[in-house]
Formats: sequence, C-alpha cells, structure tokens
Amino acid sequence: MALEERINEKLKEIAVKVDLFIGELLEPRQPEALYNSAMHIVSAGGKRLRPYLVMKSCELVGGDQDSALPFAAAMEVLHDFTLIHDDIMDNDDLRRGVPTVHKLWGVPIAILSGDLLFAKAYQAMVEPAIGGRLSCERAVECIRRVTEATITICEGQTLDVTYSDVRGASEGDYLSMVGSKTSALFKACAEVGAIVGGGSADEVAKIGSFAYDAAIAFQIVDDILGVMSDEGALGKPVGSDIREGKKTLIMIHALEQASPEEREIIEKALRAEDAAPSEIEAAKNALRSAGGIDYAMAKALECAKKAEAYLVAFPESQAKLDLLELVKYFIKRSH
Amino acid sequence: MALEERINEKLKEIAVKVDLFIGELLEPRQPEALYNSAMHIVSAGGKRLRPYLVMKSCELVGGDQDSALPFAAAMEVLHDFTLIHDDIMDNDDLRRGVPTVHKLWGVPIAILSGDLLFAKAYQAMVEPAIGGRLSCERAVECIRRVTEATITICEGQTLDVTYSDVRGASEGDYLSMVGSKTSALFKACAEVGAIVGGGSADEVAKIGSFAYDAAIAFQIVDDILGVMSDEGALGKPVGSDIREGKKTLIMIHALEQASPEEREIIEKALRAEDAAPSEIEAAKNALRSAGGIDYAMAKALECAKKAEAYLVAFPESQAKLDLLELVKYFIKRSH
Repeated sequence: MALEERINEKLKEIAVKVDLFIGELLEPRQPEALYNSAMHIVSAGGKRLRPYLVMKSCELVGGDQDSALPFAAAMEVLHDFTLIHDDIMDNDDLRRGVPTVHKLWGVPIAILSGDLLFAKAYQAMVEPAIGGRLSCERAVECIRRVTEATITICEGQTLDVTYSDVRGASEGDYLSMVGSKTSALFKACAEVGAIVGGGSADEVAKIGSFAYDAAIAFQIVDDILGVMSDEGALGKPVGSDIREGKKTLIMIHALEQASPEEREIIEKALRAEDAAPSEIEAAKNALRSAGGIDYAMAKALECAKKAEAYLVAFPESQAKLDLLELVKYFIKRSH
Repeated sequence: MALEERINEKLKEIAVKVDLFIGELLEPRQPEALYNSAMHIVSAGGKRLRPYLVMKSCELVGGDQDSALPFAAAMEVLHDFTLIHDDIMDNDDLRRGVPTVHKLWGVPIAILSGDLLFAKAYQAMVEPAIGGRLSCERAVECIRRVTEATITICEGQTLDVTYSDVRGASEGDYLSMVGSKTSALFKACAEVGAIVGGGSADEVAKIGSFAYDAAIAFQIVDDILGVMSDEGALGKPVGSDIREGKKTLIMIHALEQASPEEREIIEKALRAEDAAPSEIEAAKNALRSAGGIDYAMAKALECAKKAEAYLVAFPESQAKLDLLELVKYFIKRSH
C-alpha cells in the first residue's frame, strides 16, 4: 500500500474514535443554533492530524491509547475553535469545503460557537481526572501546556491580522508565525499525549520538539499545495493564498529572488483586488521559476529531518514507526 | 459609615490586590495590540464583585484569602472576556464608560483579546497547582466548575442573541437567562473560592446557591438602575436598555400589566429606531406606573432573602458579615 493510502487508513482509524467522543462531548443541547454551529466545521471533515499526534505520542511512551482519547478530542475541538474565529477575522467563505460558520449563522453565533468549543476542550481535559482515570497532577500539567499553546496561537494570529503584507516579511517572520500558529498546537498535542501516557519530562520534551519541527514541515507543504495544487480538493479556491497575499515561505523567497519580470507578475496578482485565473496561473509559474517552491520544499525536508532526529532516542515500536511515517507523509502528501 | 460607602471600601481593598495580580498575568508582551486591547476593559474599572465573591467565599470556609487571589483574578478576566465578545455581538459603543474594544481596535483584535483573556483565566487557575500551593485535586475541581459556567454563559448569550424580542418573553425566560448569563459565573466564583479555601462539598454547594440567588437580585437591581437612573454614571447611555428592547423583568412585567395607554407609550419607545429623550422619559414613567419597578424590586428582595438563608448554617465570621452585607448592597446600591 502506498504511503499516503496507508497513513490515511491509520488516520481514519483514530478519527472514528475521536469523532465518536466529540459527538458525545458536543451532544446537541439547547440552544440548537449554538451546538449545530459548533459541530459544523468539526463534522465537515479534516484529517484529525492533531488527535492522531496525541494518540501516537501517548503510545510512544508506553501509554494506553484510550486514555489519551479525551485529550485527542480536546485538541481537535480547540483547533476547530481557532478555525471558526480565524475565518471571521479573515472573512473567509469556505473551510473544509463547506461554508464557514459566520457565513451560515452570522458573526455573533460564530463567535459563540468558537467560545463554546474552547470551553468544551477544557471540559474534555478535566473529565478523566474528575473520574479518577488520570492523576490530577498530569491533568493539570496537560491543561497548562494547552493553555500556553492557546495564548501563543492568539499572539500569532494577532501578528497575522495586523501585519498582513507579505512584502517586507522575512523567512524569520514566517518561521515565527508558523511557530505560533501551527507548531505551538502540534507541540502541545504531542506533549499532552506523552504526559497522559506517563512519559518522563525528557520524553515529553523530545516528542514536543519532534512535533514542533514536523509542524513546520507540514505547514510549508500546506502552503505549496495551496499555491500549486490544481484539483481544487483543498476545501478552498485554488490560488486564494496568492489572492490574499498570504505570507508563505514560497512567496517570501520568490519575492527576494525573482527577476524584475517575475516580480512584476507576482506583484500584479498580489495587487489585483480580484485577480483573473490567468493572472493567478502566471503568478504560480513565476513563484516556481523564481525558485520559491524548490526552496520551500528543501526547507520542509530540513525540518522533517530535524523532527525525526528527536525520535532516535525512543525504543523501536509501532508508534515510533507511525510517527516517522507521519512526517514522511507531511512531505509527500498530495492534498 | 453608610452601607454603600463601606462596601465600596471593602471592594476597593480586594480590587487593588486583584488588579496587581491581573497586571502581572497580562504583562504587556508582543504583539502590543493584543495585550493593550485585552487590558482595555479590565483597566477601565468595574466593581470587581466577582473577585470579591471568590475571596470572601474562601475566607468563609476558613481559607486564607491570598490563596484565592489567582482564582479571583481568573474570574475577573473570564468575565471581561465575555464582556468583550458580547459587545461585538451587540455592537455596543461603550463599556465601563470607555469605548468598547472592537470600536477601538476592530472586530478581529477584539475577538482575539477575548480569546486571550479566556486562556489567561485558565493560566491563572493552573499556576497555584503547578507551584505546589494548591492541591491538583482542588485545582481540577475549580477548573471543572469554571468551565461548566462558561459553557452555560455561551448558551445564555446565544439565547439572548437569537431571541431578542422582549414582547412574548416570560418571567421564566428572564430568570433562565439571568441564571445562565449572570448567576452561573457568580455561583462558580463562590464555589471556586470555597474549594480553594478547603470547604466541604456541602459548604461549596451552599455558598454556590447563595451566590446564584444573590446574582439574580444583583441583575434585577442592575436592570432597575439601567432604566431609572438619571445620572448617566452607568458607563452607558441612560435608557439604552429600553432603546435596545432589553428583556428585563421590569419590562416583561410592565408589558403584562400595563393599561392600553401605558402599553402604547412603552411600545412606541421599543419600536423607535432612535427614540427621543422625551419618549424614553415617558416610557420610564409608564414602566413605573404599570408596576414594573415595584414588582422587580420585590422579586430582587425575595432572591436576596433566599440567598441569605443559605448562609445561616455557617458560623459567625467577618466573611459571613461581609457576604450578607454584599447582598444588602446589591439591593440598595445607587449605581
């Protein structure tokens, strides 16, 4: 079986469990609008990468997968909370191939459904300790890590909202933004899984660092797919990253290295209020010819290698193989 | 010293400590816009009733006030998070006498500053357990209560946003809305204080019920001041509750009991897009003559009595006197 197919099956196996748990956590109550809107993006799909990372990190340190399930679900709803609020801020129309929450229910309900998911994440995280299935010490430590990650995400999103011009952004800006918007949560997922699984402080730190770097690789490839993918299976219009002037490493590097002609083509697509498909297509080619794609892919590979190195110290296990394969998939996935 | 003056001094004493703690919790970091906007409503004032309730509930069960301080601060920032998000939803211009966050920084930053305060509340709540100053068991129990309250607040605010017409609302609707929008958090404040103070399950339940009913009395009087106050010291325009058709007990009762003439005057002020001061004044008089104010005040007194009864079982102490006085103040305060 090919890598992508194999990983998709493994992701699905975890996703089924996680979605069942989330279904109970967000069992419809009054008022319906709140619970329906909160479930909208959750139900629309997503790969459940974060829950997978929680579960596999738990297994990696010898923990029982099921004990990590509430935390896997918590991390998914926490992620979905950030998506709902981000979509309001960016006024995006589509997410995971469906209309965004604020487009369907309006901004007030979208704010509230994000807030609800935020609170529900904590509800999921305290329950195992309340029920005596996890020590309160480990629960508190998990809650601390997740809270710190959420604060970092708020900081990253603020930077993204306030300084949105890709022109003048540096590679350092990009890495710091990805660090706070994507890596912080991936890291917390891995840490939480390892904490619940009974991992030592050193194990928790290593798996956290693994996830941090793996997330950068994931995000860079996500940007590449966002720019280069032709199939429109992204859940959002192809080329929207260019249209919106998203600060990707591809764009940052291409703008630095482009010939005057290439730069003009890229700048034109960035400037246009509503760039035509042909202009987007031309910009894509210019990003490629200016070396943006190759550079970004090399950087993604470098981060993946760095991530893998953190796992060397762990004894061989199925979970370790799964995590190493996950990073390979981050690099090689087609969508 | 008169009751109001005495309570204000006591509130201030607690407020100074709480504000110092919040100042450290929200110490300015990058990005500035996030931290400045998050502190804006916190710094603008407010009575710090919720922190006071946390601290006094802790003392009531024999706990040390200082151990409750992080939780007192957490409850204030959690409250402020709900205020910032509510103001976006209601598109309000003023809060605590200053422009709302979204008016000054825009909706995206206002959403983020609310999210940050939400996360910061949890950060404040885990720290004592991480530092070994509170058992993890008690920390987890506090986090559970606060999380449940936040979920209830989201539900209440959704009802408020989706069914906003006061015509047709019943007293039951009002009490259920106040129960979720105000009482749930007051109750959690008292419970958390008592849990941190080492209270028994029975003590925690009693002080929680006390706070729940006291909060209804508080909210009813708040509505009365919102309608009848002339001095504009409310931090928002006098009569705005009428203009916005806010579902107050006064309004609900008055609409039920009004003569056709009184009803017409009230309905006119409710219908007007921008009612003139004279129309608001006439509506106020009609609400009074239809018995709305008297009825609401009687209900507030009834809730206050019910609240006080929950404290009978506690031994005499300064904290008990302070809490009983707080309820008296809820009824008799002038702003």
